Amino acid sequence: MQSQTPFTFTQRAQKLTSSAIREILKVTTRPEVISFAGGLPSADGFPVQEIHEAFDRVLKRDGRVALQYGPTEGYGPLREWVAADLSQDGVVVQPEEVLIVSGSQQALDLLGKLFVDVGSKILVESPTYLGALQSFSLFEPNYVSIATDDQGLIPSEVSEPKAQGARFVYALPNFHNPMGVTLSLERRQELVERCAAANIPIVEDDPYGELRYAGSHLPSLLNLGRKAGATVIRLGSFSKVLAPGLRLGYIVAPKEIIDKLVQVKQATDLHSSSITQMAVYEVIKDGFLTKHLPAVRDLYKRQCEFMLDAMTEHFPETASWTRPEGGMFIWVKLPQNVDAQELLAKAIDRHVAFVPGAPFYVNDDFQRNTMRLSFVTVSEERIRQGIAILGQLIREASEN
Amino acid sequence: MQSQTPFTFTQRAQKLTSSAIREILKVTTRPEVISFAGGLPSADGFPVQEIHEAFDRVLKRDGRVALQYGPTEGYGPLREWVAADLSQDGVVVQPEEVLIVSGSQQALDLLGKLFVDVGSKILVESPTYLGALQSFSLFEPNYVSIATDDQGLIPSEVSEPKAQGARFVYALPNFHNPMGVTLSLERRQELVERCAAANIPIVEDDPYGELRYAGSHLPSLLNLGRKAGATVIRLGSFSKVLAPGLRLGYIVAPKEIIDKLVQVKQATDLHSSSITQMAVYEVIKDGFLTKHLPAVRDLYKRQCEFMLDAMTEHFPETASWTRPEGGMFIWVKLPQNVDAQELLAKAIDRHVAFVPGAPFYVNDDFQRNTMRLSFVTVSEERIRQGIAILGQLIREASEN
Repeated sequence: MQSQTPFTFTQRAQKLTSSAIREILKVTTRPEVISFAGGLPSADGFPVQEIHEAFDRVLKRDGRVALQYGPTEGYGPLREWVAADLSQDGVVVQPEEVLIVSGSQQALDLLGKLFVDVGSKILVESPTYLGALQSFSLFEPNYVSIATDDQGLIPSEVSEPKAQGARFVYALPNFHNPMGVTLSLERRQELVERCAAANIPIVEDDPYGELRYAGSHLPSLLNLGRKAGATVIRLGSFSKVLAPGLRLGYIVAPKEIIDKLVQVKQATDLHSSSITQMAVYEVIKDGFLTKHLPAVRDLYKRQCEFMLDAMTEHFPETASWTRPEGGMFIWVKLPQNVDAQELLAKAIDRHVAFVPGAPFYVNDDFQRNTMRLSFVTVSEERIRQGIAILGQLIREASEN
Repeated sequence: MQSQTPFTFTQRAQKLTSSAIREILKVTTRPEVISFAGGLPSADGFPVQEIHEAFDRVLKRDGRVALQYGPTEGYGPLREWVAADLSQDGVVVQPEEVLIVSGSQQALDLLGKLFVDVGSKILVESPTYLGALQSFSLFEPNYVSIATDDQGLIPSEVSEPKAQGARFVYALPNFHNPMGVTLSLERRQELVERCAAANIPIVEDDPYGELRYAGSHLPSLLNLGRKAGATVIRLGSFSKVLAPGLRLGYIVAPKEIIDKLVQVKQATDLHSSSITQMAVYEVIKDGFLTKHLPAVRDLYKRQCEFMLDAMTEHFPETASWTRPEGGMFIWVKLPQNVDAQELLAKAIDRHVAFVPGAPFYVNDDFQRNTMRLSFVTVSEERIRQGIAILGQLIREASEN
């Protein structure tokens, strides 16, 4: 008699595999590895002292409140701060339109629960943020790719028959992960108009928006969308402007959507940590970010320019890459005959790591000759060394 | 031409309604209301000073680590602490069998994602924890009720044909929410043996286990189950032994299950807050709970006895109730003809609140004449007043 297995996993969980990024990061924790694979912000930019003082004040003044259960919607003053921060250019956001979440990744999970039935059509850029694909995939959607070029997503695609009836379009307009590109004002305007006309909500994921170090500020999809009558659900995060270890972000959406998300979040984790919400509010309430962010932007700008210069020096002319105006990532198109996964194996042997482009695509429509480089946590000396090694390996691979 | 709605929610989200408990709690925040409805621990038991000192040390010593992204599995030393704490009576738990989560509620969400396909059979006590029903329901299971009596769940029911092939049985062996009862050693042993034989994993939810103030410690289902060859997934929480505003708990399970849960959690929220995990470890690492918990238990014991005495004085003899050996809740069976939902409406008019029993049942097999009372956050004077009012209302209702 054959024994039964002691447990049965769901079909969705069986399909899950560990993130390619996480698996690579396991290798990259070895100190000799020069890692361009990370999605981590630079700890040099964390305002440790200010956060320390904020926890101190909150625990001294309001310890019993900070340690008790809190409302699922989030800490009231923090919701008000987010609403005020996003009320600009003629658009007013109400605190009731804000839900505090445990990092942007949780926002994706809640949106999956709220909008994705098995087989629901959702539109994603090609390529798009790997973590969003992992999160949405737990709810088994039918992904439809929106093509991109070197200016980001191509808005006309959301009006095509293949896109009709989608539950939402997921877009990263600023300093795209993984592509590093920024969507132009014209394309933003066209996107919100087409989505308004097609009744497709837009999920605007903008974790890096405050990290602009070149070019000019562009209005958010939330701002343009509200004026155009589109439904926009905006995701923000404190991970890149303060620190990711706090695990705090927010969702801004019409109240009817927030009310339902509150029910979903209650079932998911009751609420986000009271003490970290109160401490984050304590840090930012008097305009701290205005003073803090220029230093972070300068740091990222220097690192980015240094890497771009090293790439120009060492990469072959048959490779091309994006020149980000902000954020953390450069996207590389390798010569057509170079497979980034094979390149990674050789690079790891030389103690250099990056993320191949394939996992950022859905439906196997990936381009094998792409890779994502992050410049934020590596010293200039090691950027120079690592890029030189990669350049050499790319040349060798392209000559085969 | 009729306009389309601008968005479509999932079927599961459409079925969600706000928790009856949360809706009631909105009323109970008014200061004049005597609320026995809460599930909140008493803030008098929070070790504010020790937690404050722990955040202070962590941010002074390891600020950049505490504020950076961390591993999905959780902070290593905290996983080791949990493993050591649960290694007892001949059972050894390895750190690799521990996943740190953002409160026990998140554990339920992750288990739903891992084990509940649409229509999967899962076994729950009748009644059971409302928050678990909300969490599991997002994954649309087929609930099968396990009957209970005044000693808790009846183990023979898990061997019945109706229970065969269940994805798991969800059980609260200690100081049950909402019933306040504790499962006897004999029933624990029978439950793990029957589950081992039937290949049904057990989810042991034990947030209150350390809050025993009467009777003797009983071995956990994890301990008995491992000896009997059952698959046990144990959920623990720091919410009741330290403070719920930290939002930290853990799952202990065989490594094969933990490995899959890590992938699920990564897609769900990347990881739990680094800083709160490090601060909690800093508080508890040198045996703090051994010194701290007796005071919390004494507080809860006094409140519980005071409420039980008031109930004996004021409730009619046609009502009966449980006498908890720990935890936060007393479960009341009202006279057969009294509907607790109707009683609540009258009680709210008199500024007294509690939770009617109905929402703790699945499949509409509820008993209308039941209610849950919590005694932990109300002063003795107000317990006396509130119970006197309830006693009067119950008498009036039962005489109609």
